[in-house]
Amino acid sequence: TDWDRWMLMGLIGIGVGMLGFLTHQIIDYLIKLKWELVKNYLQNGNFHMTWICILGSGLAMIVVSSGLVVFFCPAGAPYGLPEVIGFLNGASIQHIFNVKTFLGTFVSCVLAVASGLFCGPEGPMIHLGAIIGCGLSQFKSDTLGIQLPFFTRFWNSADKRNFITAGAGAGIASVFRAPVGGLLFTLEEVASFWDIRLAWQTFFCCLMAAFTTDLLSSSLSGFVYRGHFGFFKAEKRILFWVKNLLDMSVLAFVPTIFLGILGGLFGALFVSLNIKINKLRERFFSSIKKTSLRKTSKLLESVLVLGCTITVTVYLPYFFSCTPVMNLRTLQLKNSSEIISPFEREISEYSCPSGTAWIGPDGVKYSNQTFNEAAALLAENGKRGIMYLFRRGTHEEFGYTSLITALAFYFFLSCWTAGSAVASGLVIPMLYTGALYGRIVGLILVSIFGVQTNEQGAWIDPGLFAAVGAASFFSGVSRLTISLTVIMVEITNDVQSLLLVMLAVMVAKMIGDWFNMSLYSSLLKLKGIPYLDSEPLASHKKNRLNLELFFARDVMEPCVRVLHLRENIASLAQLIASTSHGGFPVVYKPKPDQVEVFLGTITRLELCMLLQHEAIFETETNHDSLSCCPLLLYQKITVEKLPDPPQMTMLLNCYSTDPQYQQLFINLEPYINKSAVSVQAHFSLQRTYIIFRTLGLRHLTVVDLQNRVVGIITRKDLMSFQLEERLARQLASQKRDSDEQPLD
Amino acid sequence: TDWDRWMLMGLIGIGVGMLGFLTHQIIDYLIKLKWELVKNYLQNGNFHMTWICILGSGLAMIVVSSGLVVFFCPAGAPYGLPEVIGFLNGASIQHIFNVKTFLGTFVSCVLAVASGLFCGPEGPMIHLGAIIGCGLSQFKSDTLGIQLPFFTRFWNSADKRNFITAGAGAGIASVFRAPVGGLLFTLEEVASFWDIRLAWQTFFCCLMAAFTTDLLSSSLSGFVYRGHFGFFKAEKRILFWVKNLLDMSVLAFVPTIFLGILGGLFGALFVSLNIKINKLRERFFSSIKKTSLRKTSKLLESVLVLGCTITVTVYLPYFFSCTPVMNLRTLQLKNSSEIISPFEREISEYSCPSGTAWIGPDGVKYSNQTFNEAAALLAENGKRGIMYLFRRGTHEEFGYTSLITALAFYFFLSCWTAGSAVASGLVIPMLYTGALYGRIVGLILVSIFGVQTNEQGAWIDPGLFAAVGAASFFSGVSRLTISLTVIMVEITNDVQSLLLVMLAVMVAKMIGDWFNMSLYSSLLKLKGIPYLDSEPLASHKKNRLNLELFFARDVMEPCVRVLHLRENIASLAQLIASTSHGGFPVVYKPKPDQVEVFLGTITRLELCMLLQHEAIFETETNHDSLSCCPLLLYQKITVEKLPDPPQMTMLLNCYSTDPQYQQLFINLEPYINKSAVSVQAHFSLQRTYIIFRTLGLRHLTVVDLQNRVVGIITRKDLMSFQLEERLARQLASQKRDSDEQPLD
Repeated sequence: TDWDRWMLMGLIGIGVGMLGFLTHQIIDYLIKLKWELVKNYLQNGNFHMTWICILGSGLAMIVVSSGLVVFFCPAGAPYGLPEVIGFLNGASIQHIFNVKTFLGTFVSCVLAVASGLFCGPEGPMIHLGAIIGCGLSQFKSDTLGIQLPFFTRFWNSADKRNFITAGAGAGIASVFRAPVGGLLFTLEEVASFWDIRLAWQTFFCCLMAAFTTDLLSSSLSGFVYRGHFGFFKAEKRILFWVKNLLDMSVLAFVPTIFLGILGGLFGALFVSLNIKINKLRERFFSSIKKTSLRKTSKLLESVLVLGCTITVTVYLPYFFSCTPVMNLRTLQLKNSSEIISPFEREISEYSCPSGTAWIGPDGVKYSNQTFNEAAALLAENGKRGIMYLFRRGTHEEFGYTSLITALAFYFFLSCWTAGSAVASGLVIPMLYTGALYGRIVGLILVSIFGVQTNEQGAWIDPGLFAAVGAASFFSGVSRLTISLTVIMVEITNDVQSLLLVMLAVMVAKMIGDWFNMSLYSSLLKLKGIPYLDSEPLASHKKNRLNLELFFARDVMEPCVRVLHLRENIASLAQLIASTSHGGFPVVYKPKPDQVEVFLGTITRLELCMLLQHEAIFETETNHDSLSCCPLLLYQKITVEKLPDPPQMTMLLNCYSTDPQYQQLFINLEPYINKSAVSVQAHFSLQRTYIIFRTLGLRHLTVVDLQNRVVGIITRKDLMSFQLEERLARQLASQKRDSDEQPLD
Repeated sequence: TDWDRWMLMGLIGIGVGMLGFLTHQIIDYLIKLKWELVKNYLQNGNFHMTWICILGSGLAMIVVSSGLVVFFCPAGAPYGLPEVIGFLNGASIQHIFNVKTFLGTFVSCVLAVASGLFCGPEGPMIHLGAIIGCGLSQFKSDTLGIQLPFFTRFWNSADKRNFITAGAGAGIASVFRAPVGGLLFTLEEVASFWDIRLAWQTFFCCLMAAFTTDLLSSSLSGFVYRGHFGFFKAEKRILFWVKNLLDMSVLAFVPTIFLGILGGLFGALFVSLNIKINKLRERFFSSIKKTSLRKTSKLLESVLVLGCTITVTVYLPYFFSCTPVMNLRTLQLKNSSEIISPFEREISEYSCPSGTAWIGPDGVKYSNQTFNEAAALLAENGKRGIMYLFRRGTHEEFGYTSLITALAFYFFLSCWTAGSAVASGLVIPMLYTGALYGRIVGLILVSIFGVQTNEQGAWIDPGLFAAVGAASFFSGVSRLTISLTVIMVEITNDVQSLLLVMLAVMVAKMIGDWFNMSLYSSLLKLKGIPYLDSEPLASHKKNRLNLELFFARDVMEPCVRVLHLRENIASLAQLIASTSHGGFPVVYKPKPDQVEVFLGTITRLELCMLLQHEAIFETETNHDSLSCCPLLLYQKITVEKLPDPPQMTMLLNCYSTDPQYQQLFINLEPYINKSAVSVQAHFSLQRTYIIFRTLGLRHLTVVDLQNRVVGIITRKDLMSFQLEERLARQLASQKRDSDEQPLD
């Protein structure tokens, strides 16, 4: 029975749910505090003082936020989704699931969003969820020196990977209240290895995360108790709830295809721009030699981004006059049981005079409330902006000027923000940018056909196209399909526009793929994380190579250090000290007159752990009896990483120099992995890649027909650029001696 | 570029969408016709004449429906989801994607549902979708003798499998208007091999299917043109649309857990009952020796099921009086723009007097319409019943008596129906059964707490618990999780109750798994389809065996017929004629003094195709020059099945007897698969299974350390029962000579 696994999944879900709740509450609280500060200045129209106050408080936050990432996090750079994806694909990344990284990322992310930068907390939440998944399941921390004797049976890399995947999914589930969306997100983008059992456990984890966030949010808002504990209002739970579903016309598919194309184009532009900015940034910072200076200048860049953002945010509304809140918006209030009272002043009102509300003689509620379009779109945060843009029946609430201005500034500033030295996410900015141009397209339709109130024309609603546009841009940047569609349904509760969303997503992905890779893939490449796609891809002179025509021997590393069943301690220590290989093939001679054949593999870590136990060393004399020595338990030699690397170095040094170890031997037989897969040198490269990737290997031994070791293939050998280089050399040499036999 | 693949996916989607539309239209039309016939008898309360008419028309349909399956379909039995699942897992199943199977299944399914049996069209629709996927992508039919030169590049088993998967998903997408649900259903239950590219193509296929069904249904209803072409009303698109989302209380999770437990218990009971009935049926029919008699008695069983079903359907409402249509239901009409007119008589009114409607002095619409609870639940079809049960705000519309009676009859009759000789699906019955007991639980809550109209008690709504119950029973029977949740959201548009649905689904699956396997797995086992799970499972004396402790040699077939690079025609023909192996290892001696090593494999089909080309046969003399003979193209020998089996038998016979072929040889080298994976005999059984399953193999050669062939493992060798038998023998022999060395 797997009760402990389920319990752990539940715990991870609850943990991530609490974290998601905290993140939201703190962000909302800080934003409210910030605007409370300048309320009076705003009402008097004192923009300069507003700017000073908002910038000042923002600066305080961003300095802490960026400082934490640069100086406190062990990596010195913000980690996020690409690193988690790379790790789950099998790459090894330092410090990614560290306690310090967790604290730094959490605080940095909360402060960055609250400071007013154009970013969201989603990316970091996925990473934080993954850290919780890792930390809780392993129940130990190297940084803190803690190691608790719970759940020890999950101390292996397969289970660890599963819990990390579940935690990452719970992050999305909590932040969007989208449990199924979070699950599918991990399936589509995060996890490289997946089976239905893991899916089903992640399902539970995401459920618990969404439930916890809902439960805690039900009664607390900005850390103030509002009653109704355990009462989930649809209004609050469904982030961008679309209340009135529109009957749809097939004509709506025309602007949707257009939005899809826009999404693909803008998305591809965003990706390439972001990568360019990142490369430029990389080059600039690496030109600064002094570490402290480089770190400080990274921090200064974040400050600069914030300065620009705040200036735009505060001064742009100055150029816009006050717009009356639309009647259609007011009409909705009539049906609800809301009590007529003076409105609480919202940020979107900005410097406009306060409005009042009254009930007309016809029983309908009226108000003369006004708001500032630019302030509504830019001042608060992206989430609130999306809420305004998605709202149905508000055809002309936002005009072309405010939408286009907001789009331009938001697009470039969010592109610049992503990649600067703060922990920030891109999901909200992507949805928001898309919603902006979606609404512009909707507004164009309204301009052409007028505000339609009859049933047949109900679909010409800018709110609908804002939602479709949001999906299209998200897809254009991230190239997600299934999970994105499900997330859209979960955050809007609008199944009726599902087909439109799917179509926009599809077109955007197709157009985007035509130009470049998805943002995550591009970042994986940029950051040099060795990620293996599920299918091999290599091209030569712009033609895609058919890897069926190449062989395993074409990419293997032919110089392999092999071990024998009986190894000398001194030479083994020397080998480990002088190489950095992660694993070694072990060979053996079945009979004295036969060749040495491949028997299995042993990893570097296992060798190191073995060498730490002198009790199993043998002298040369007991040559024949193999089982005389005490055997080490499997648990003792299977570790995630070396407990004490400096001590190991000393030990290796001692073994290689002290002459007594020249006489000692170790019998590796009980410890080698005899089920290690090998391929024949004449295997097709395509097949070799599939075997390597599908079975999730780290090393693949290449043998000849007699089962002798002739080479080894590692992850790096199968990366696209490496493949291309080796195969190009291969093709060149083939051209030279083209009369060579294809088969040997 | 993959434009042809996308086009084909689109075509498959459109085809399946049209088929789904047709299915629904015909069923609705036939049901309407049937009840139109007895309208007058019903109004006069003449139950006997009603029974005769309904039974008569039903019998006519069921005889055709069952007759088609039994006498016309090549398999003589209804194929459905289990066969598709088995095929995609790698099992070979005869006639599954045949034109005759398609026609028979389609007509049989439509007539079975229309006849009044307690079944739905979903299972057959998945199968039909898969057939469309197969037929369109291969663009050829052996039955019809058609072979068109389109899309020839997809004539391989991998692509075929992908198109079949997409078609199956489109089937669900079309029938539920749930594109994402259909996609996830294939991922979770149907497909054994899956990658993100396939997901993304299936996504498109499902989108096109749902769109086509929507578009065609928008203007046609029962084949009558109703206008509004291309106008998708939410009312029609979302099958069981929940219009008013309820604010939820955390207390709702308590009855949800209870429903989950019920779902698990009832689900497990349903599975075991269905399997028992199927076994009984199997035993009974196999005791009838004469084929025609056996087939006829199968048909008679369907007739018997129908007789019972119709009798219950028609006479049960006799015991129920007329219930007034609830005020709450009437109130809803007020908001819509419906014109006051005499109601069209619905089947649910049954023998009740016609009602009229009027507008009261308070502007609210009233009516004295009445309906018969049992008729509403049983007479029409499950889909309509679900619609009534899911409706919110109808707290006391159905009483305990009608719900419990309907539940009892529906549960047993649908369990009996599933497996009889008609093409029928179980999805609607599963949802319906669950909705029935869900509503009973909801009614109990209403009895305890009363009809709550305030905000805090809104969640005590039997409609909500009917939906949760439906999900729980579906999960209890099918053990689906993710796809089920998404389908529930897509057919109800209720994200607010998502957490409840997830929880119920989870609990039901856990409880159900405790008792038995899912219905599909049980049917796969019952039908003897060799399905390999993603993880091996074998137990010995009720303890689960750790397969890491066993080896590949423990389950391999040690007597292997190996081929050499140069084979004699006569002996090859004899080998093929005398064995039924699907593939053979090919061995070769690198140097005269060395042992024969494993080089690759060749399949039986490839050997047969080679033998049909006498041009490549060699005489003994040209022994040295390997490449003198003409080479056959890869396309010529890679076929799905033998073009002409009788001719092949003759040819083999001729080769083995005619002495001239004793002198002829064939050089197999150019045709063997040199990238065939092999495992060492000392590989752990766990690892061997994972390699076999993950790489989707059909044969796995077992070699020793010198790379000599020592055995072969096939799909059958890895089936649970086979594993258990062999390992039990292994354990027994280990006990006998327990002093034997574990390593050799």
